[in-house]
Amino acid sequence: MKKIDLRSDTITKPTEAMIRAMAEAEVGDDVYREDPTVNRLEEIAAERLGKEAALFVTSGTQGNQVAVLTHCVNGDEVIVEAESHIFYYEGGAMSALAGVQTRTVPGVRGALRGEDVEKAIRSTTNIHFPRTKLICLENTHNRAGGAVMTPEQMQSVYEVAQKHGIPLHLDGARLFNAAVALGVDVQEFSRYTDTVQICLSKGLSAPVGSIIAGDRAFIEEARWWRKKLGGGLRQVGYLAAPGILALTEMTDRLVEDHDRAKQLAEGFSKLSLEVAPVDTNIVLVKTDSIRVPAVEFLKLLSDRGVYAVDFDEYMIRFTTHRHITENDIQYVLEVVESLIAGVSTAQ
Amino acid sequence: MKKIDLRSDTITKPTEAMIRAMAEAEVGDDVYREDPTVNRLEEIAAERLGKEAALFVTSGTQGNQVAVLTHCVNGDEVIVEAESHIFYYEGGAMSALAGVQTRTVPGVRGALRGEDVEKAIRSTTNIHFPRTKLICLENTHNRAGGAVMTPEQMQSVYEVAQKHGIPLHLDGARLFNAAVALGVDVQEFSRYTDTVQICLSKGLSAPVGSIIAGDRAFIEEARWWRKKLGGGLRQVGYLAAPGILALTEMTDRLVEDHDRAKQLAEGFSKLSLEVAPVDTNIVLVKTDSIRVPAVEFLKLLSDRGVYAVDFDEYMIRFTTHRHITENDIQYVLEVVESLIAGVSTAQ
Amino acid sequence: MKKIDLRSDTITKPTEAMIRAMAEAEVGDDVYREDPTVNRLEEIAAERLGKEAALFVTSGTQGNQVAVLTHCVNGDEVIVEAESHIFYYEGGAMSALAGVQTRTVPGVRGALRGEDVEKAIRSTTNIHFPRTKLICLENTHNRAGGAVMTPEQMQSVYEVAQKHGIPLHLDGARLFNAAVALGVDVQEFSRYTDTVQICLSKGLSAPVGSIIAGDRAFIEEARWWRKKLGGGLRQVGYLAAPGILALTEMTDRLVEDHDRAKQLAEGFSKLSLEVAPVDTNIVLVKTDSIRVPAVEFLKLLSDRGVYAVDFDEYMIRFTTHRHITENDIQYVLEVVESLIAGVSTAQ
Amino acid sequence: MKKIDLRSDTITKPTEAMIRAMAEAEVGDDVYREDPTVNRLEEIAAERLGKEAALFVTSGTQGNQVAVLTHCVNGDEVIVEAESHIFYYEGGAMSALAGVQTRTVPGVRGALRGEDVEKAIRSTTNIHFPRTKLICLENTHNRAGGAVMTPEQMQSVYEVAQKHGIPLHLDGARLFNAAVALGVDVQEFSRYTDTVQICLSKGLSAPVGSIIAGDRAFIEEARWWRKKLGGGLRQVGYLAAPGILALTEMTDRLVEDHDRAKQLAEGFSKLSLEVAPVDTNIVLVKTDSIRVPAVEFLKLLSDRGVYAVDFDEYMIRFTTHRHITENDIQYVLEVVESLIAGVSTAQ
Repeated sequence: MKKIDLRSDTITKPTEAMIRAMAEAEVGDDVYREDPTVNRLEEIAAERLGKEAALFVTSGTQGNQVAVLTHCVNGDEVIVEAESHIFYYEGGAMSALAGVQTRTVPGVRGALRGEDVEKAIRSTTNIHFPRTKLICLENTHNRAGGAVMTPEQMQSVYEVAQKHGIPLHLDGARLFNAAVALGVDVQEFSRYTDTVQICLSKGLSAPVGSIIAGDRAFIEEARWWRKKLGGGLRQVGYLAAPGILALTEMTDRLVEDHDRAKQLAEGFSKLSLEVAPVDTNIVLVKTDSIRVPAVEFLKLLSDRGVYAVDFDEYMIRFTTHRHITENDIQYVLEVVESLIAGVSTAQ
Repeated sequence: MKKIDLRSDTITKPTEAMIRAMAEAEVGDDVYREDPTVNRLEEIAAERLGKEAALFVTSGTQGNQVAVLTHCVNGDEVIVEAESHIFYYEGGAMSALAGVQTRTVPGVRGALRGEDVEKAIRSTTNIHFPRTKLICLENTHNRAGGAVMTPEQMQSVYEVAQKHGIPLHLDGARLFNAAVALGVDVQEFSRYTDTVQICLSKGLSAPVGSIIAGDRAFIEEARWWRKKLGGGLRQVGYLAAPGILALTEMTDRLVEDHDRAKQLAEGFSKLSLEVAPVDTNIVLVKTDSIRVPAVEFLKLLSDRGVYAVDFDEYMIRFTTHRHITENDIQYVLEVVESLIAGVSTAQ
Repeated sequence: MKKIDLRSDTITKPTEAMIRAMAEAEVGDDVYREDPTVNRLEEIAAERLGKEAALFVTSGTQGNQVAVLTHCVNGDEVIVEAESHIFYYEGGAMSALAGVQTRTVPGVRGALRGEDVEKAIRSTTNIHFPRTKLICLENTHNRAGGAVMTPEQMQSVYEVAQKHGIPLHLDGARLFNAAVALGVDVQEFSRYTDTVQICLSKGLSAPVGSIIAGDRAFIEEARWWRKKLGGGLRQVGYLAAPGILALTEMTDRLVEDHDRAKQLAEGFSKLSLEVAPVDTNIVLVKTDSIRVPAVEFLKLLSDRGVYAVDFDEYMIRFTTHRHITENDIQYVLEVVESLIAGVSTAQ
Repeated sequence: MKKIDLRSDTITKPTEAMIRAMAEAEVGDDVYREDPTVNRLEEIAAERLGKEAALFVTSGTQGNQVAVLTHCVNGDEVIVEAESHIFYYEGGAMSALAGVQTRTVPGVRGALRGEDVEKAIRSTTNIHFPRTKLICLENTHNRAGGAVMTPEQMQSVYEVAQKHGIPLHLDGARLFNAAVALGVDVQEFSRYTDTVQICLSKGLSAPVGSIIAGDRAFIEEARWWRKKLGGGLRQVGYLAAPGILALTEMTDRLVEDHDRAKQLAEGFSKLSLEVAPVDTNIVLVKTDSIRVPAVEFLKLLSDRGVYAVDFDEYMIRFTTHRHITENDIQYVLEVVESLIAGVSTAQ
């Protein structure tokens, strides 16, 4: 049976060119900062994001956590969107490792508003309060269904951050999706940040790795925390080499993933399923209307070779990526159509 | 000028009887568990709350934090009401000291609902999630204006907690206010908890101290964490002695504070101020209608000898207590009336 | 049976004057910084120690931990003497609460040497190292048997600290014993510190409480951490009042405790027991020579009404204090003599 | 100029076979546990070490820290050798991330003795103490100059650990060096551990990665902490593939590194330099006799193309590895001989 895997864009495998780059990579000991391929990746990434410096980390989680550890000390408070990845999906690491309290603020489709952020910033004179030392955004926003936060929306939060002298970190695991979706340069977003994390895997298809970027002092300090987390590696140029291609060759192709996602969403709508607006490569579908819990529906799908993940009791996430074709989308829609028919009959 | 201090019931001074009890207290070294007065207080408190054992701590914050440290380990998640004291006013200590992530859930007038709590409990099989290891309630709820959570409301959350095998801790800093307000025994609340913290100061007027209560194993373990926080004290029977009177002599008198609060609220309403419902000894008044920010209004009040605290940009909290008389309430209302008149004229 | 309790000077009860001061204390809400007695104690303590400011805390452990939390952030390293109280007897709190690593350096009778401290300071350029952010001394040193660190010894460490820009904190739980033993002012020690903690209980006989002192900025910041630990209290002037007497009336009397300790040590020596040098009010006795483990010997002693504590498998600590008379010492020596005789016969 | 790099065996580059294995690796998303190459590596490693299960981590530091986080909770104490890597070179991470206090015990050439460990285990009934929850060994021991701890030595500690119900973790970053040095199977060491970490890089020449192994429940739990540290990776089979070769093809070759190290040490001895005993691939040389500080001597060496690292003010570490030939050793000895001659003349 055909297997169509829409669980996540993290499952993408590297391109042939990436594997070749890996095999031919010139490497060194990156703990001594002597891996030329890592050094080149970090330079390219910094330039691409418009920051002074960048650092390779092994995952988006590691990048986000190193950023929190570098910006904050134990006892601080960090403002995060209520369903942001850094809060929702990183195992409570911000509090476990950095000893900071998370202050969750609900966004609009994942986008925090400057005014709401400002209300959540603590007075610095009341001894009962932790101090607000970081504001985190996520763009595109995973749990909001890959929703894009526009540069204007980011600017409104950044101005609040600047006004209060609080750094702003962006979890941009899928930031290139946002850039491609709006047809703007990625710096239109990163300019409204102090530090930013981007993933080289996911839609960009590198096997492993993320980047954090910021000013030079921040990145130097971040190296210390990365080391404590066990992220100071040796001949890691083998991962940096495909990472370079991810940044230089793969960003434009994300438009294809977005097209597939829109096709899928339209197809679902025609089947009378409730679908969240699709900005990028994520499609959220509700299953309440057919009265089948997400987990059950996923079982029916996987029996037919289609894989996705549950996002809520009655919500399923489908994520498009490089290995998903137009035909795959057609197949998925046919499967879903037949399942709905079956469900209706049964009820 | 007369000074009427409605900032908090924490400012209450001990009664004559309390001071006498203090001076006559039989004491010992409580680190060796040889202070007979402390031992007696802990027994009385445990019995009063219907728990196996109790422990004296120096503040509500210490009691809550010791509870979190005892129930959880670093990396866990704790469900708390979105504006609960333990989250809002304890300096981010849960994350700073215990390394746990706070999962805030908004309540209805401070009361969490069982169904909302259940939704916030994490799946234990997804490696991206922290584990939910504690649920905290607050009764009465400070930022909700001294709102009472009924035993039925508590029960609904407790049943969810029990179902998932997660302990429930109650921040009952003002739990006796809730009991007096509903005319029920305090055990009607504490029975729906695994552990509970109550304050001996505040309306009960002891100078210093709180109690945490729970089963024997919990309290034994809590002693270790209290020690690490520097809360293992020596001849602290001098504080336990008035604490005993707080528990045995002072709970019924809270009804007077509630009466004063209601008078104050009714007076404010007559002056066309928007007042939150008053369940106990706290009155929240909005100042938007007169378009004066809370901080400015507080300045006008204090110029006339009346003191309260700001709770939001346009929200003021007045708290009644043992030192506030009917005459004081009348005086406050007169002051506010004249201030409003002045403000209206000025605008 | 007579009970002679030499377990610790922490068991001392307050004087009549202290209890009177407590009953008559003028108090206020110290969280609002409105308790006049606390404010007065803090002023007196700061002046006495030659520091800009001071803060009341509920125990030596709380004072030490607040100091560490204020001087350091998570990820730092702290140099401590290998058997210092802050490392040995505070439940691992430095690491548990502040997230700092303890770097233990063995002292000579508890006294760290400048050169050994300097060797333990980490290079700041090696990414594998934590950063050394605090040096802690203890004077008198508990596990070294109440040994005094001379001002010259402290100076040698302080000069190293200054040279490297690292603050020095002194655990001076029994600092007045050191001052009395050398017949110098307490400032001869505190001048070689950035921050210092002293106990008001122990030999000085206040029921509860300690002081930390340092510069104004440090103390302001320390208030935030004290609050997180639950050490921000209300009408705590009742404890501050006896604390004032402890500082102003009780320090000179420590000489009596030292005399008793010397008597005891001499008596033990005459009984051919191995006794550590006695500088102040602590006597360490080895029980290897009579081949009785400490715990067993303590049992024999307590059967005869004499109480002390084990410090090692074959080491017992006796601590003299205000409630121990010359007659008590005689009685203890008689008991020990008869016990040794019994032991010898039995073996 | 020829460059002979003896700074560390971490600089080794992978073999041709490893690069080929990398390029041909079959991969999947390891967060979903679907990377067949990672799964195979973990099985092979578990079997090789005689444990139920194993986990790939990105570095020795990450492996050690995940072990500590999994074995302990905040507030515990861990016994470590006084100059062990986990304490000395991991940035204070044990305390920063896990909130545990390090209890350092000096070993004999890095080898802890069972009796010394037992003395350092805390009584579990004294509330002043943290609880001892882990014992860590290191074999071979880096700062002790690659010293081997014999199975008998490990057994003596393991028996103490077992007796007290405390798990024992082995930092075996260079455990295969120990096995090769004694000519025994690696399980002769790992059998005296509960959990063990080994490095695939260093002498075994994989580019990146380590393994932790233990029982199944431990490894399952370790996955959660690895995720929080950002060590849950995607198509990481590209690193696992050379890791498999490291384990299956490269361990025997370590004997060559040991031979080179012995040659080097003998040469140094003939030049009248003080050299620590050489068990494996590390040579520690003292420079006091020629009165040149390590850092200065390293400068003289590097001017001649020879690289090593300073280990103390007058101590240099040379580490042999796959890229060091007999000729290189000769060259290094010639360089050192001429340097010593020059130094003697100059003084």
